[in-house]
Amino acid sequence: MGARSDHTAVGAERIIISVDAMGGDQGPAAVVGGMEHSAARNPDIGFILHGPRAELEPLVARRRALAGRVEIRDAPQVVSMNDKPSQVVRQGRATSMWSALESVRAREASVCVSCGNTGALMLMSVMRLRKLPGIARPAIAVMWPSQNPQQHNIMLDGGADISADARDLMQYALMGASYARNGFGLARPRIGLLNVGTEEHKGRAELREAHDLIAANADAAAYEFVGFVEGRDLPGTVCDVIVTDGFTGNVALKTGEGTAKLVGDLLREAFNHSPLSRLAALLAYTSLQRMRKRVDPRRANGGVFLGLNGTVVKSHGAADATGVSSAIKLAFELARSHFTERLAARIAAATPAGNEMTGPEEGTST
Amino acid sequence: MGARSDHTAVGAERIIISVDAMGGDQGPAAVVGGMEHSAARNPDIGFILHGPRAELEPLVARRRALAGRVEIRDAPQVVSMNDKPSQVVRQGRATSMWSALESVRAREASVCVSCGNTGALMLMSVMRLRKLPGIARPAIAVMWPSQNPQQHNIMLDGGADISADARDLMQYALMGASYARNGFGLARPRIGLLNVGTEEHKGRAELREAHDLIAANADAAAYEFVGFVEGRDLPGTVCDVIVTDGFTGNVALKTGEGTAKLVGDLLREAFNHSPLSRLAALLAYTSLQRMRKRVDPRRANGGVFLGLNGTVVKSHGAADATGVSSAIKLAFELARSHFTERLAARIAAATPAGNEMTGPEEGTST
Repeated sequence: MGARSDHTAVGAERIIISVDAMGGDQGPAAVVGGMEHSAARNPDIGFILHGPRAELEPLVARRRALAGRVEIRDAPQVVSMNDKPSQVVRQGRATSMWSALESVRAREASVCVSCGNTGALMLMSVMRLRKLPGIARPAIAVMWPSQNPQQHNIMLDGGADISADARDLMQYALMGASYARNGFGLARPRIGLLNVGTEEHKGRAELREAHDLIAANADAAAYEFVGFVEGRDLPGTVCDVIVTDGFTGNVALKTGEGTAKLVGDLLREAFNHSPLSRLAALLAYTSLQRMRKRVDPRRANGGVFLGLNGTVVKSHGAADATGVSSAIKLAFELARSHFTERLAARIAAATPAGNEMTGPEEGTST
Repeated sequence: MGARSDHTAVGAERIIISVDAMGGDQGPAAVVGGMEHSAARNPDIGFILHGPRAELEPLVARRRALAGRVEIRDAPQVVSMNDKPSQVVRQGRATSMWSALESVRAREASVCVSCGNTGALMLMSVMRLRKLPGIARPAIAVMWPSQNPQQHNIMLDGGADISADARDLMQYALMGASYARNGFGLARPRIGLLNVGTEEHKGRAELREAHDLIAANADAAAYEFVGFVEGRDLPGTVCDVIVTDGFTGNVALKTGEGTAKLVGDLLREAFNHSPLSRLAALLAYTSLQRMRKRVDPRRANGGVFLGLNGTVVKSHGAADATGVSSAIKLAFELARSHFTERLAARIAAATPAGNEMTGPEEGTST
């Protein structure tokens, strides 16, 4: 296999990120632009880039900061946003997405970054990387702007699965705590369980059960459990990680996006209302830009797939070079902290041995 | 019973609203202030006010617009925000909340308005007013600011119950359509069903079933069904009414509130950053105030309990006089349009006869 020597060629000391060039709304030029952005700032990063070689080679050659730091793997097919996950699985082997995951599976790269179709990426990730021993449902961890010191909270599951039982929710707490520790440097993350009220007697039965399971694992897994939290705590300061099922999480995520967009639209309207308000907008420009950065989804760009033998960062489909560069930065942080291995160890410590959900081929990895 | 003659005394031509004076965070003075606000603007409104007479009489006497338009009903006890619903039900008969609902049950008033504890108010409403024939789960309809012409969308259930099956969701669609027609004057409201994607094959099984039930009732119930919608459509323009279970709806509602608050806080921070930005805030003051009105929860103040023999408007616990006045205005609109009776007729037309969930005493009313 030529991969190993290629890997050495791009720098044995470097952390290698596997990047799917295709599938994003802005095409491979935005992805390569994001890679250059990251490479220029970070000498310790190298890439394996997946997609049609003839299209990618000139894009990479044009970016000077990428010289000698990118290996291209030819993958002629592309997973589109409209492909159904089931189609993708049957016909996906020649796609850039499959190839990008393959580099992580083969341990040539530590983390995979893709802007592609979320459903297809999750399904393919489970097929290629397999679930961690003891994990029934992988989850997507997403970021919320908040006024906590780290400026972001983590919510999971953002939509990998439409349901979760008490044990899944407990594992989300473990995974979210590991992610907050390795991705954001929080020594003892505060975990909250999303519910419709903070009283312990409230909510669905599986939530009360999950409450007790998450509380029981707090010391062993080095997190603080703050109990039930509500929707308003997602962008709040009472905790750092919010645990919920993927249906509720996905609705909440899109509700937050929609609300922020409405407020932004109304603000623009307000500032356009009169000559005086247009002047005010001009004077406040720098301050408003600073604020926009805080809530800009491009700056917190990266849903992370947790619970697999390998880490996958899902960048927003509409990400531009800035967005891709953010996702790569997150991938780099997670790779450098050996996040996958640490998370696997946490899960193994919290999960009873001999779990019927893990096959033997899963038990041997990480 | 002296009620009937009292009722005549406050004006037989008037629409009478039953108001719970107690249980709000700002006390009875804010409630009476809101009543005066409404009475001054609307000559066709009268009130029955419930609470400790000794406390209420001087408050009412001080407000000139209320002269001759308020009847006070003495109710010495108050339901507090911390009371558990179960306690309230056992010991609630002497409370202002119970008394306020009693006026609607006895047909002395058309609609009840309360700022009190939501859980207690819902439980007591179901006990006193009973569910409409054919309705298994009443719902709370709440408003979202939006850029639709009516400036608000309606979402239900906002948290009356933590789950809903396909038939409940279909009834929420009927109730939401009636509410949008009678409360907002929309002839043919557009209904959306909240899900994690707009594709018909997505989401939980009960949602796919509800999708078909809601579609089947569209013509008979005079609404347009736009199919599945996502969290971002809650403040969006693709539909007027969004249907979901009370768990998801409550999380979404509080997520929207939390996100709007975060953006507002960051905006204030941005405008406070430098002398220049403070000057800008001054210049933009009027425009910003106009925008704030659009997203101010006080202006869209009133969760409406649907599916009962009588209408209950739940005002925000923190409502001031402006907020209470908004809730009263909504109550008046619903009463004037004979909303309760129209809704009951819609439900009866859509529900199969001989339903096992309705007792005989429910079948006789409205």
